[in-house]
Amino acid sequence: MGKTRLGILGYGNLGRGVELAVRQNDDIELVAVYTRRDPSSVSIATESVEVKSAEALEGGAEPIDVLVLCGGSATDLPKQTPYYAQWYNVVDSFDTHAKIPEHFAAVDAAAQASGKTALISCGWDPGLFSLNRLMGNCFLPDGADYTFWGKGISQGHSDAVRRIEGVADAKQYTIPIESALEAVRSGANPELTTREKHLRECFVVLEEGADAAEVERQIVTMPNYFSDYDTTVHFISQEELDRDHSAMPHGGFVLRSGQSASGKKMLIEYSLKLDSNPEFTTCVLVAYARAVARMAAEGKAGAFTVFDIPPAYLSPLDGAELRAHLL
Amino acid sequence: MGKTRLGILGYGNLGRGVELAVRQNDDIELVAVYTRRDPSSVSIATESVEVKSAEALEGGAEPIDVLVLCGGSATDLPKQTPYYAQWYNVVDSFDTHAKIPEHFAAVDAAAQASGKTALISCGWDPGLFSLNRLMGNCFLPDGADYTFWGKGISQGHSDAVRRIEGVADAKQYTIPIESALEAVRSGANPELTTREKHLRECFVVLEEGADAAEVERQIVTMPNYFSDYDTTVHFISQEELDRDHSAMPHGGFVLRSGQSASGKKMLIEYSLKLDSNPEFTTCVLVAYARAVARMAAEGKAGAFTVFDIPPAYLSPLDGAELRAHLL
Repeated sequence: MGKTRLGILGYGNLGRGVELAVRQNDDIELVAVYTRRDPSSVSIATESVEVKSAEALEGGAEPIDVLVLCGGSATDLPKQTPYYAQWYNVVDSFDTHAKIPEHFAAVDAAAQASGKTALISCGWDPGLFSLNRLMGNCFLPDGADYTFWGKGISQGHSDAVRRIEGVADAKQYTIPIESALEAVRSGANPELTTREKHLRECFVVLEEGADAAEVERQIVTMPNYFSDYDTTVHFISQEELDRDHSAMPHGGFVLRSGQSASGKKMLIEYSLKLDSNPEFTTCVLVAYARAVARMAAEGKAGAFTVFDIPPAYLSPLDGAELRAHLL
Repeated sequence: MGKTRLGILGYGNLGRGVELAVRQNDDIELVAVYTRRDPSSVSIATESVEVKSAEALEGGAEPIDVLVLCGGSATDLPKQTPYYAQWYNVVDSFDTHAKIPEHFAAVDAAAQASGKTALISCGWDPGLFSLNRLMGNCFLPDGADYTFWGKGISQGHSDAVRRIEGVADAKQYTIPIESALEAVRSGANPELTTREKHLRECFVVLEEGADAAEVERQIVTMPNYFSDYDTTVHFISQEELDRDHSAMPHGGFVLRSGQSASGKKMLIEYSLKLDSNPEFTTCVLVAYARAVARMAAEGKAGAFTVFDIPPAYLSPLDGAELRAHLL
């Protein structure tokens, strides 16, 4: 079997991450990066790979096994994933949890019609964290789920702070509260409020003449985003923000705490500590793109999620090698 | 779809655990416990369930969807799993890692011939730990694997101590060394010797007149089992052993520490903390038995491992429910 040929659509943090992740997988090659911008304006890290207009994808003529959709969940993916599934096997990282059923239905209709394989909502949450929630529920039906995120930068919360008048720039960290994690690990199955699970910490650059007290008030009282949390606001210079807060770390914890029918306590914990959220997400996307290529080769048409993928499909090794070395 | 009907072969710790785990899963029922002993001598926890002779299984007439084989890996399963796969869909927890390829081949031949579905080496190691090793390798190809076991009782090591002359009874705990775990979590990718990863702690009841110093010497110098470890030996009474060391706790940690192509560090950690090793193993077996019943209904014949099972097959919920609530 030849290499799995990937295309990337969209060259932001995710697109760059997929490009990097391909380099760590000898059985996968990157055919092209597709962009809606002027291709000559997009400079990518791999000299040997072509940048093409997204228009080249129309009609399905591009020589790729899987198209990795690296757009955003708010506006790009709801259109792109069903659209490109009419011609290509696709993977996306759609992460608006509440809209997953709707997105799945749209992608499934397109992929069923075209006979292509489409994997949606891949990454670590949704993705690996979802797998751990699912499996935790199956093994310990009598138990409770806990998901903690962080420490890491939340793009949505950072954006919300940046939209406040007087804010020039901002980054927001979501921080799990250690005592809450410990309470869960103790097996006490605590009922935790939103405020008890996470702290929010904001680093804010003010515009010239902005009212710091008013900006802070607007942040900490913002409904949904901050009012239910203990939030700390630090005012710093743009230089400090760029120097100290440009990395995109993230991670988190999924715990299932339960008991057997005889009352024996059991705890399953899965955690990620990531120096780069997009670069890890794309490591996951590339492994799942390998699985999608295999499912496509088997003629499995329609939309799928990580729940549907046999783990062996993620690996370049065959079944006998996996059983001998990793089981 | 009716309930998934299970049979249990063998009523030791695992058989009892499967019986308990069935009670936590409304879509699964226990049809019978099969035993090689005189059925009238076996008293089980569930009054409504029949105890039958293993001979009843001959020919495949028993009304069960999946037979859960609860024998030992040393002598029972190498014979039982291929044997019963000629008539039934089966699940086992074969855990002799080095002999998995051989066991797989024997079971696969039998199940291919009969058209049955057979899942081998299910549980937490091999099993869930294997899944995490596999997935960690796929997502972080540039990295290192670490597995730590414990704190928990090792049956094999306890048996080895009990075989020493002068030992009336004994339990051995495998204990992961916290500083080694922390070194792995730091992202340093340390090379750890056997001695640096685990401690061994033995609780020993001496026979009347036995030479404690000699017993201790034989334990700590025993090749393979103890000589490569720092081992502590405590001499206690049978009463103390029964009172303080009758539980069967276990657990452990699987870590994958790696980096992206740009050098960003990533850490994946999976851990289990189990008050009862057999009762958790059997929670896993029962969820996978559900998956086996589904694969059998789809006509998937042959031997499989946890690597081959789509995670959704473990759950009683359908795809739409899983996507809406757990993705």
